[in-house]
Amino acid sequence: MSRLSSRHLLGLEDVPKEDITMILDAAETFREVLDREIKKLPTLRGITVLNLFYEPSTRTRISFELAEKRLSADTINFTKATSSVTKGESLRDTVQNIEAMKLDMCVVRHASVGVPYYLTQCMDANIINAGDGTHEHPTQALLDMFTIRKIYGKIEGLRVVLLGDVMHSRVIRSNIWGLKTMGASVALCAPSTLIPHGVEVFGCDVYTHLDEALDGADVVNIMRIQLERQKAGLFPSQREYTNLFGINQARLKRLNKNYTIMHPGPMNRGVEVTSDVADSERSVILDQVTNGQAVRMAVLYLLSGRKEEQE
Amino acid sequence: MSRLSSRHLLGLEDVPKEDITMILDAAETFREVLDREIKKLPTLRGITVLNLFYEPSTRTRISFELAEKRLSADTINFTKATSSVTKGESLRDTVQNIEAMKLDMCVVRHASVGVPYYLTQCMDANIINAGDGTHEHPTQALLDMFTIRKIYGKIEGLRVVLLGDVMHSRVIRSNIWGLKTMGASVALCAPSTLIPHGVEVFGCDVYTHLDEALDGADVVNIMRIQLERQKAGLFPSQREYTNLFGINQARLKRLNKNYTIMHPGPMNRGVEVTSDVADSERSVILDQVTNGQAVRMAVLYLLSGRKEEQE
Amino acid sequence: MSRLSSRHLLGLEDVPKEDITMILDAAETFREVLDREIKKLPTLRGITVLNLFYEPSTRTRISFELAEKRLSADTINFTKATSSVTKGESLRDTVQNIEAMKLDMCVVRHASVGVPYYLTQCMDANIINAGDGTHEHPTQALLDMFTIRKIYGKIEGLRVVLLGDVMHSRVIRSNIWGLKTMGASVALCAPSTLIPHGVEVFGCDVYTHLDEALDGADVVNIMRIQLERQKAGLFPSQREYTNLFGINQARLKRLNKNYTIMHPGPMNRGVEVTSDVADSERSVILDQVTNGQAVRMAVLYLLSGRKEEQE
Repeated sequence: MSRLSSRHLLGLEDVPKEDITMILDAAETFREVLDREIKKLPTLRGITVLNLFYEPSTRTRISFELAEKRLSADTINFTKATSSVTKGESLRDTVQNIEAMKLDMCVVRHASVGVPYYLTQCMDANIINAGDGTHEHPTQALLDMFTIRKIYGKIEGLRVVLLGDVMHSRVIRSNIWGLKTMGASVALCAPSTLIPHGVEVFGCDVYTHLDEALDGADVVNIMRIQLERQKAGLFPSQREYTNLFGINQARLKRLNKNYTIMHPGPMNRGVEVTSDVADSERSVILDQVTNGQAVRMAVLYLLSGRKEEQE
Repeated sequence: MSRLSSRHLLGLEDVPKEDITMILDAAETFREVLDREIKKLPTLRGITVLNLFYEPSTRTRISFELAEKRLSADTINFTKATSSVTKGESLRDTVQNIEAMKLDMCVVRHASVGVPYYLTQCMDANIINAGDGTHEHPTQALLDMFTIRKIYGKIEGLRVVLLGDVMHSRVIRSNIWGLKTMGASVALCAPSTLIPHGVEVFGCDVYTHLDEALDGADVVNIMRIQLERQKAGLFPSQREYTNLFGINQARLKRLNKNYTIMHPGPMNRGVEVTSDVADSERSVILDQVTNGQAVRMAVLYLLSGRKEEQE
Repeated sequence: MSRLSSRHLLGLEDVPKEDITMILDAAETFREVLDREIKKLPTLRGITVLNLFYEPSTRTRISFELAEKRLSADTINFTKATSSVTKGESLRDTVQNIEAMKLDMCVVRHASVGVPYYLTQCMDANIINAGDGTHEHPTQALLDMFTIRKIYGKIEGLRVVLLGDVMHSRVIRSNIWGLKTMGASVALCAPSTLIPHGVEVFGCDVYTHLDEALDGADVVNIMRIQLERQKAGLFPSQREYTNLFGINQARLKRLNKNYTIMHPGPMNRGVEVTSDVADSERSVILDQVTNGQAVRMAVLYLLSGRKEEQE
């Protein structure tokens, strides 16, 4: 058993195929554990994980905390609401102080791009990016790829549409890097106001018409549309977004027969996706959540370096 | 050892006498554990419990969390303050997402009636209602009954006065159902503006004069008066409420000799009860809190179905 | 092995030299544990600790929670933000309710002086003061002394300058009592508006000119200046404070050769201390944080009385 090539998981942009495969393979084992009556393992006993959430979060924080507890790690939660961040201390001082308490791993979410990387410069702990601004959200993309691989037995050669706010979505960014590394064909689809300049660096097909993007695709991964983008003038109205970019049953005809609907949540039902599609048999939205447990357990486990010790 | 007739505890309205007795009996065992130096048991090792508190709460949340930890369960806390509920996701989607993380049990408090029932429709986890709007708060009533049974050796045949906001109090509702099932005689007492239409469905004696309600009673369970009800015009002033419905030493003469004073907390001292009564020898207000630990441990244990496995 | 002379740690004012020495000695052992790969001990297994934080706090709360978890205690967090304190219950009733849940130890921070003492009157649990108003913050002073002793091998005979808001700082108060008990020579330095009337009861040298205070000192422990004091008119401007009382490289010439710079954090860089000093080789600011882990583990352990049982 080899190691991951990095001690941290900051994003998928530079993660090699071997590492992604190693994580997805480890997650298969943990996914089986989740179907047992007792879902707890002694793997990370004695390890302390800090969940450092500067942005509010329900599902991601709970998903990580559960994954940690299921591996028998000790967890400490830090959320902005209950902290003294308002005292105006610099992030660096906060982080160095936390580091001085000798934590083993740190899961971090922050509104600013690059905070997880910055933490690797200040801390010895293994850092896991749980979302940094518009940059990356690598465990979300890993669980999306795990879900795809479980359905199709592979990722390579599949056509995946990433639909939504290409300009701001960290989930789309992480999916692009991961999917391309694994050999998928990636289509991006958004209103032109939500497509960044220089989008061609991603090496994806880019569409501003939904029907064209869906033609012959296997997977549609639908992003939540942030209604605050509309206030910023980036799309004219929620109704227009729904008309032009919302997924409904009629549109699914253009997809390949064995298609799959994904969404990282939380959903705006009736906006970016209709309820009948979200709740249909081809939707794996809740499987994504369960698989997120397994993938996060795999990431924690592999980064901890515990495997080698036990072998 | 038989099982409870339900996998969930949503309220006491339809809970049979056998189930209530089973819970109170199990709680006796846990109550003894609380007097030991080490109060921790391995009973729920490997079980994960989510504490889903949409309403702020000090004592109920801590009481459940402690009960869970004393049974060696893993706990995850969700409070509205630190969540992304504000993102406008539907309750159903939030709950299904949590369910997909494969939690074993869920303790829920919510301002809306019926949320715990709704959770049973979306989740496989055992659901425990920790208070839903004006509907029920079953563990509070169970701990009240446990406390009464400890003092008198029985519940049947006792006269219990439930004093306070009959219209809105979930504690009163749960006490009514539980006490009547166990064979107590129940008197309700409140200003007429705080007595709901159709109160006769409860099958209790109803009083708008405190002295009449207290005549010949064994137990007075005094509810907190919500001062916001006054703002809503449901009683004229706090002073008038205290004069007409407040419990003080003078009024206790009408009770049976061996009477007991209860209050679920938090108290408005000097409003619904005077401090000398609250702190008197016949007050069991703090015993209720300790007994709440034992009763919640019993409920968690019995709902988990762990007993059968070990036998 | 003897016991501490008190079951609680409320402050250092009346703590004898033997107790302080016992805590610092025990902390040496825990400090070594923090350098191991597995930093967890079974010492407090089965013990439940409540962290009762009425004031927001990042580092102190996390430091205590980590120390508790590393000793295998169960922890319950209470922070004002998520509680029903707003319901207007008295502190006494809140505390008695918590006590009735049979917790073993309670770490408390509160804006009002004397709350930790008050808790000892209502609870059987061991009480640890994590900061009460302007009164004391004993574990901070203990970790400061531990840090000093590690560097110099002793505390007695050293000259220590406590620089900052002598009137309001609970860290200064606890340091004064602890350092004097251990035989250090203590100098206080602040603007005259931040020196309390009757400062002579402390038995320290008092300075309003920084250079004089630094002359011949070994240690400078720099306190955070609370910018809200300026709004209250207690010093004219931040710039003036920095000019007159800020520590920079030039001023350090007056110290003894083997000097040490300390700060309890969070720092206002560029206000009470320049960044080059804070990050210099003679600064032990991050060591203080690590040592805080060891000292808090020692306090929890010694107060729990567990040692005697195991011997």
